Amino acid sequence: MKKLINAPEDVVKDALRGMAAAHPDLLRVDVENQIVYRTDAPVSGKVALVSGGGSGHEPMHGGYVGRGMLDAACPGAVFTSPVPDQMLEATKGVDGGAGVVHIVKNYTGDVMNFQLAAELAQDEGLKVESVLVNDDVAVEDSLYTAGRRGTGATPLVEKIAGGLAESGADTTPAAGTPTFQLCDDEIELGVGIHGEPGRTRRKIGPASELAEIAAKAILDDYPFDRGDPALVFVNGMGGTPLIELYVVFSEVARILQGKGVKIARSLVGSHVTSLDMTGYSLTLLKLDDELTALWDAPVLTPALRWGA
Amino acid sequence: MKKLINAPEDVVKDALRGMAAAHPDLLRVDVENQIVYRTDAPVSGKVALVSGGGSGHEPMHGGYVGRGMLDAACPGAVFTSPVPDQMLEATKGVDGGAGVVHIVKNYTGDVMNFQLAAELAQDEGLKVESVLVNDDVAVEDSLYTAGRRGTGATPLVEKIAGGLAESGADTTPAAGTPTFQLCDDEIELGVGIHGEPGRTRRKIGPASELAEIAAKAILDDYPFDRGDPALVFVNGMGGTPLIELYVVFSEVARILQGKGVKIARSLVGSHVTSLDMTGYSLTLLKLDDELTALWDAPVLTPALRWGA
Repeated sequence: MKKLINAPEDVVKDALRGMAAAHPDLLRVDVENQIVYRTDAPVSGKVALVSGGGSGHEPMHGGYVGRGMLDAACPGAVFTSPVPDQMLEATKGVDGGAGVVHIVKNYTGDVMNFQLAAELAQDEGLKVESVLVNDDVAVEDSLYTAGRRGTGATPLVEKIAGGLAESGADTTPAAGTPTFQLCDDEIELGVGIHGEPGRTRRKIGPASELAEIAAKAILDDYPFDRGDPALVFVNGMGGTPLIELYVVFSEVARILQGKGVKIARSLVGSHVTSLDMTGYSLTLLKLDDELTALWDAPVLTPALRWGA
Repeated sequence: MKKLINAPEDVVKDALRGMAAAHPDLLRVDVENQIVYRTDAPVSGKVALVSGGGSGHEPMHGGYVGRGMLDAACPGAVFTSPVPDQMLEATKGVDGGAGVVHIVKNYTGDVMNFQLAAELAQDEGLKVESVLVNDDVAVEDSLYTAGRRGTGATPLVEKIAGGLAESGADTTPAAGTPTFQLCDDEIELGVGIHGEPGRTRRKIGPASELAEIAAKAILDDYPFDRGDPALVFVNGMGGTPLIELYVVFSEVARILQGKGVKIARSLVGSHVTSLDMTGYSLTLLKLDDELTALWDAPVLTPALRWGA
């Protein structure tokens, strides 16, 4: 496989240098410690949000750093969790006196390391809470994770929590209790973003059939009533053309319309990726007025930008 | 190759249905005639911009329809030019009385069909001008094109011309005379977006070397002086992970820094694609105050969105 890199061991730091060069208005990058900060961190009096995880899933998470979303992201090596020292450094770097929330995808390495970092930060007197994202209905108790994997819901959590923090809210969610529920399904083989085996292997079928399987898996787990407004996120895994994601979106829209679910907001693109993996994931979020307003709130990051 | 589609002959219309379902706030889609309009077209008194080309290059062009960019886009079949009737229909649909500009990539089928559409529209009393985008220093007089191919510069032209039109400008550029010069280079093999043979075939090298080749090809053709501000666009061809695009950006930044060129604006992502093609293209635009202001002007499209 041909890769546009210098040396494999340099890829993360090289990419961080590229992010710094491309987005000096949005980001300040500590290349040595592998931490991406929003330029104005720490923001005094604002609850700060930190996320992180293995590299290879871009734009997650560095692409979601900026006003209205994350205060810092800690990229690990490719498909490898970041280390507790890195998370601790980021946590201290963004703390504006109102506490820090760690947004952690349910992946055993991430969970353990963020937990240790939180304890170390608490030892130094910081207030730290964690939110676990574990939305994936397809990958449960996999090779790398106890319980459900956190995947497509992650940028939605980061955007909505970011909007809440930016509005000056001082409510940090209780540890391990997300304030809203999200579901997700990786179709095709149902694989996880590190290649975890999914529900089933099957031949590719028409998009209509694959959309039915994904939508059914989610709606069985997370039912919608007629008239419920949904945020519909069709995510490409990295190597899938955008035209195909719109074909999938069309099929999902048809299914939801048949159930009377209203598509109130949408996101279509490759946001939670896995290097060259092809395929898509579907994420449905039931909206209410508060979540809709937080989703619509201004955001200014490399990967999501509106209203600002 | 596994594709997320229903049937190959339905892919364009299915994707258009998906765009309509995902972006009803931004777009109105005539699925039958394969035309994507901004919701409020025609905008009275505004110069209207229409582009189009074969499908398979998403988000170009439908993803660039909306306030501050295109008024309409005409997608053809995959890698196939749209037809004159379709372009005529779009031209009539967006005309707000101030004239229509066709933004045409230099690809023989597109050029011929847009020319015929313009003549038909003129016969009906509309004022139509055309701008030809022919920025590619790597593909010249290829299988499909006389002269340089139009590629990476296209969304930059669409954004900047869109900003100008939105500001109420009534100046339509003279036919065939772009108001600014852009250069572009497809690295790796220098291939065109339909697979046209490029300059040379060579083994993949480190990103630093590939960036040198692309930057040199552009700068030899389109020299920058020390202190010149540049918009640097590192574009993924569709199948290249974002992390690699940032590695490339880092190398391009190093080269430009060495020449004293200032990176004033940047765009990093898969914007001008070719289905599953991997690799990247580099586009450099020399900015002045007017172009910078037009680039920064609000834009509200599925693929580019800021300030609005």
